[in-house]
Amino acid sequence: MTHKTFPSWPDVAPQLIETAAGRAPADMVIRNGSWVNVHTREVLDQHDIAIKSGRIAYVGPDASAMIGPDTQVVEAEGRYMMPGLCDAHMHIESGMLTPAEFARAVIPHGTTSMFTDPHEIANVLGLEGVRLMHDEALLQPVNIYTQMPSCAPSAPGLETTGYEITAEDVAEAMHWPGIIGLGEMMNFPGVAMGDPKMLAEIAATQRAGKTVGGHYASPDLGPDFAAYVAGGPADDHEGTCEADAIARMRQGMRAMVRLGSAWYDVEAQITAITEKGLDPRNFILCTDDCHSGTLVNDGHMNRVVRHAIECGCDPLIALQMATINTATHFGLEREIGSLTPGRRADVILTSDLRSLPIEVVIARGQIVAESGSIKVECPHLDWPESARGTVHLGHELAAGDFELAAPDGANSVTANVIGVVENQAPTKALKAELPVVDGLVEGRDDICQIALVERHQATGGVTNAFVSGFGYAGDMAMASTVAHDSHHMIVVGTDRAQMALAANRLAEVGGGITLFRDGKELALVELPIAGLMSDRPASEVAAKAQKLVEAMQACGCTLNNAYMQHSLLALVVIPELRISDLGLVDVRTFKKIPVIEPFNE
Amino acid sequence: MTHKTFPSWPDVAPQLIETAAGRAPADMVIRNGSWVNVHTREVLDQHDIAIKSGRIAYVGPDASAMIGPDTQVVEAEGRYMMPGLCDAHMHIESGMLTPAEFARAVIPHGTTSMFTDPHEIANVLGLEGVRLMHDEALLQPVNIYTQMPSCAPSAPGLETTGYEITAEDVAEAMHWPGIIGLGEMMNFPGVAMGDPKMLAEIAATQRAGKTVGGHYASPDLGPDFAAYVAGGPADDHEGTCEADAIARMRQGMRAMVRLGSAWYDVEAQITAITEKGLDPRNFILCTDDCHSGTLVNDGHMNRVVRHAIECGCDPLIALQMATINTATHFGLEREIGSLTPGRRADVILTSDLRSLPIEVVIARGQIVAESGSIKVECPHLDWPESARGTVHLGHELAAGDFELAAPDGANSVTANVIGVVENQAPTKALKAELPVVDGLVEGRDDICQIALVERHQATGGVTNAFVSGFGYAGDMAMASTVAHDSHHMIVVGTDRAQMALAANRLAEVGGGITLFRDGKELALVELPIAGLMSDRPASEVAAKAQKLVEAMQACGCTLNNAYMQHSLLALVVIPELRISDLGLVDVRTFKKIPVIEPFNE
Repeated sequence: MTHKTFPSWPDVAPQLIETAAGRAPADMVIRNGSWVNVHTREVLDQHDIAIKSGRIAYVGPDASAMIGPDTQVVEAEGRYMMPGLCDAHMHIESGMLTPAEFARAVIPHGTTSMFTDPHEIANVLGLEGVRLMHDEALLQPVNIYTQMPSCAPSAPGLETTGYEITAEDVAEAMHWPGIIGLGEMMNFPGVAMGDPKMLAEIAATQRAGKTVGGHYASPDLGPDFAAYVAGGPADDHEGTCEADAIARMRQGMRAMVRLGSAWYDVEAQITAITEKGLDPRNFILCTDDCHSGTLVNDGHMNRVVRHAIECGCDPLIALQMATINTATHFGLEREIGSLTPGRRADVILTSDLRSLPIEVVIARGQIVAESGSIKVECPHLDWPESARGTVHLGHELAAGDFELAAPDGANSVTANVIGVVENQAPTKALKAELPVVDGLVEGRDDICQIALVERHQATGGVTNAFVSGFGYAGDMAMASTVAHDSHHMIVVGTDRAQMALAANRLAEVGGGITLFRDGKELALVELPIAGLMSDRPASEVAAKAQKLVEAMQACGCTLNNAYMQHSLLALVVIPELRISDLGLVDVRTFKKIPVIEPFNE
Repeated sequence: MTHKTFPSWPDVAPQLIETAAGRAPADMVIRNGSWVNVHTREVLDQHDIAIKSGRIAYVGPDASAMIGPDTQVVEAEGRYMMPGLCDAHMHIESGMLTPAEFARAVIPHGTTSMFTDPHEIANVLGLEGVRLMHDEALLQPVNIYTQMPSCAPSAPGLETTGYEITAEDVAEAMHWPGIIGLGEMMNFPGVAMGDPKMLAEIAATQRAGKTVGGHYASPDLGPDFAAYVAGGPADDHEGTCEADAIARMRQGMRAMVRLGSAWYDVEAQITAITEKGLDPRNFILCTDDCHSGTLVNDGHMNRVVRHAIECGCDPLIALQMATINTATHFGLEREIGSLTPGRRADVILTSDLRSLPIEVVIARGQIVAESGSIKVECPHLDWPESARGTVHLGHELAAGDFELAAPDGANSVTANVIGVVENQAPTKALKAELPVVDGLVEGRDDICQIALVERHQATGGVTNAFVSGFGYAGDMAMASTVAHDSHHMIVVGTDRAQMALAANRLAEVGGGITLFRDGKELALVELPIAGLMSDRPASEVAAKAQKLVEAMQACGCTLNNAYMQHSLLALVVIPELRISDLGLVDVRTFKKIPVIEPFNE
C-alpha cells in the first residue's frame, strides 16, 4: 500500500512563511491563550497561534493579520495552550485495541504522539504483523511512530513463537516511513555478553540514525549494567527506584518512567528531579502498558503528567517530560513536542496546568477532540485474513488433551507448581503433593491445571502443568490467546472438559479471552486481530473485560488484576516458574524442569 | 580521495562491551577524577573512565578490572574530568589558518569539536573549496564538522564572486561524510520573502535530517523575524541583547551566543539564563570568528566558557552550553558532548571549573595536548595548485589603474566617501569635497583612496573610490585578499604608485596582506591558500599579523582593530557604504551610487 505521510516542514515552508509574514491567511488561528513554552519553561500570556497546512506558522502576540475569511478562529479565552502529549514508549496491544481504536481512545486525553513497540504482534505474525501495525498507525490523525521490535522470541530456546524477528528484519524496517527506532532491547544479558544478533540489530538502528530503546530489567547496576550501556541502548523504562533513574541519566541514557495500568514507577523515581535536583531534560514519562479500562476511565498521558505533578514535580517540568524531552530523544524536536513555528500543530487547550482538564485537542491543525469527545475518524486498516485467523489448533481439543498421566503405580506425586503472587509479575516455584486418580494427576485445593496450547503452527501440542493462587472453585476454565510473549494460548481450569470447551471456543472466534463454567460461557472478549486486539471501540472492549473480571470472581478468584497474572504465565523471561510450548521453565536457571518429579518408590 | 572516518559506535560496540564488563582491557584508563556530568549537571568524585578504540567504554567508580599490561593509565589525581569543548559555529578562515593549523592552535585550549562554515573559501573556490576544507577537517585528530555554506555570493547582483553556491551544490554536499548541516542562512530578507533558492537550500538540508544554521542580523523581532523562523533556520548567533536570545529560544531556535575576537555578545545575553531563569538547554556558546592572535594569546572555547562564568553563569551550566547543548542541537548527543559510554573519548582534565586551566586534553582516546602543548600531528591536505594560485589579475597594475578622472572642467568634486567607524562593522556614507589636480580627483586630509581589484576572473577590473577614517599619512598603501565576502582584493592607500606595488606583490605571493611605504614593504602576511589562509602555525601568522598592525600604526593609523575594518570594506550586506567589483554600493538601499556626484556647474 502507499502511505500518505504528513507533509514535511520544507514541503510547506513557503506557505508558513507567507502566513507568518502576514501576507496570507492562516487555516486556523488560536486567539488569546497563555503560551506554554517548553523550550524556555515559561508561560506567556496573551499569545496567538497561527496554523497553516497542519503546521504552526506563527506564535506571537498578534495573529490578527493572518485571519482571512476562511480562517477558523479558536478562542482560547486566556486558557493555556500547551503541546500535545507524547507517550515515549508503549505497546498498543496492551489495550487489546487496534492502533485506530487506541488512537480514538487516547486523543480525547490529549495524546497526539506515541512511540509504539508492536512486539506482541511480532511474536504472532512476524515482520508482516509489525508492518500492519505500522501501516494502520500512519493512517491516524495523530503521530504514531513505530519502534521495530527487537526480541521475538524474547527467550530463544525456551519457547517457539509464531515468527522470529531477525537482524535483517530490523535493517529492512529501518527504511519504513514510520519507524523511529528499535523497540526495547529486552535481551539485556545478551547485549552484556556481546550476542552478535542483538548487536546487529542495534547497529542497524544506529546506522540508520535512529534511537535504540532499552530494557534493563535488573536491579544490578554493576558490570552487567555497564556492559549493557556500552552496547548502545539510549533509554530505559525498567527502572523502579530513584537510583535506577539517576544511574541511567548519568550514563547518558534517558530515564523513561512509567505510569501504566499496572506500572507505578513515577513516584519512586521523580525524586531524582524534585529532591536531588538533577537536570530534568533526560527524564521522560511514558505508560508502557495501558488496559482499555484505564483509557476509558482514567486517561492516558494526561494521567501520567498529572500524577507527576501530584508527586511534587513543577507542572512545566512535568510537561517538558511528556513533550520536548521526548521529541528531543527521538530526534524529533523540530517536528513535534513544542508550540513553535514549523512543528506539527498539536495543541491542547486547558484551563489548569495542575489538574489538566483536556478541553480542546488539535492535532496537525485540526480539532480532533473537544470536552472528551473525539471529533475525527480514526481509519481502520483492512486487516488481511492472515492477521484475523491466527488461532491454529492441530485438532479440536478434548478433555483428554489436558490429562497428566502419573507414573505407573503412583498414588500421589510431587509436582512443580507455578505459584501466582498477587500484584506481582514474578511467580513462585512451588512443590506440592498431588493425588493420582485413575492414573491421572489431579489438582487439589487451590492447585488447578494450566495448559499451554500451541496455536501458531497447528502442531496440536499441549503442555500441561499446575498452577496455584487463583482461588478457582467448581468446574471452570479460562483461556486466553494473550499469552506473553509468544502468545500461544494459556488455559487455566479446574476441569478438563471445561478447558477443552474454552480452548475450542477461542479457535472458533479467532482469539480472545473466554471463561466457561459448567459448560456455559460466562464471558468472552473477542480479540480477532492476531488473537491480541479488537477493532471495536475501547469502551466496548473495556466493558467486556470488566465482565470477564466479574466472571473470574464468580468462579472464586479473589486476586486483584488476575487476568494480568493469567496472561503472564508463559512469560519465560521473568522468574521463577513459567510454562511454554516446550515445557515447564525455571527462569531462575533458564532450564526446563519436569512437571512431575521422578517417582522414587 | 578516500576518507578515513572515525569508527562508529556500532563498529566498536563489541569491544566497548567487553571492556565495560571487565572481560577485556581498556586502551586507556583515567583514574580517580571528578566526573563532570553534563547530562545530570553534577560533579561526582572518585570516578574512573575506561577508553577503548577511541570511545568511552565505561565511567564508574572502579575501572581497575579494565587495566591490562598495555593499558595507558592517566592519573587524574582528583582533578575534574570534563567533556572536550565544542565550538558551535565558526569560520576557520577567520584565523587565517588552514583547518590543520587551526586545530593545532585550539586543541591545547581544549576544543575537541568544531562546527565550521567555510563560506569565505566558498566565495573564492566554490564547492571545490568547501570540499578541500572538509577534507582537511576530516584528517584532524579532533572532530571538525562542516556546515555547507548557504550564501555565496552574500549579496547577489551587488558583487561578483569567484564562484556561486547553488541549491544543487547544497544537496550534493549533504551526502559528504563530514557535513553536519547548512551554514548560516545570511539572506534573511530572502527567506522572509520566500526566495525559492534559499528555501531549496534549506529543504535539501532538512530532508537530509541535518541542521539549518541561521543568521538573522536585525533587531526587528516583528513579522520579518517571524517569517524567517517559519522558514526553518534552527539556530541564530546574530543576537546581541537579552531580548534577542529570549526571542530565539521561545521560537524553538537555539540561541548561539558569541565571544569571538571582535564579538562580545555573551554578557548581554546570558542574563536570559542567569537573571530571567529560562531553561538553559537551548543556549549555546560559540566564537564565530577568532583571529590567530586570540588563539595564541587568549584561548578559544575555554575563553568563552570562562567568560560566561565570569558573567555570573553557573560553571556546570556554562559547560553544558559548550558541550551537550551543542551536541544535542546537531543530533550528535550520542556521539560527542558528554563523558558517557559509546561517545568519542574527548576529555579535558582541569583542576578548576571556574578558571579552567586546560591541563590535559584527550581526543578520541589519545592525549592530544598537555599543559598547553600539542602532542599530535595535525595532518595537512596536499592543497592543489588551483587552491594556491587564486590571485588572478588581468595585468600587472600601475599607478594609472587607480586614477579617478574628474569631470571635464571641474576644479573640485563632491565624492561619496566610505567612512570607517572605529570598532564597528557598519560604515558611514559620507560626502566630501575633493580637489582635482591635473584632471584627477585626489584625496585630502584623512580621505584616501580605496580600490577593489578583481582577482577571480582576471578581468583586470579595478573599482576606485574614497575612504576616510584610517588616519594614514605619507606615501603608503595596504592591500589584502581577505576582503569579505567575495574576497577580491582591497587596496587602501594615499599614493597610487604604492597601491600598485602592494597589489602586484599580493599577486606575486598568491595572496595575503601587505603594506608598502615609500616603495618598501613594511609587513607581509602570506595567505597562499585561496588568498585567505596560511598553512604555517598560528604563532607565526599571529606574529606577522602583529607586525602588520605595527606597520599600519607607523603609517599613522590610530584605529583599534583597523585590519578588520580594512577587510570588511567590501561587505555589501552591512550598511552604509561599501565597495564591490561592480561599484560603490549604498547598503541602505541595496543600490549602486556614483563615486563622484554629477557635476552641475
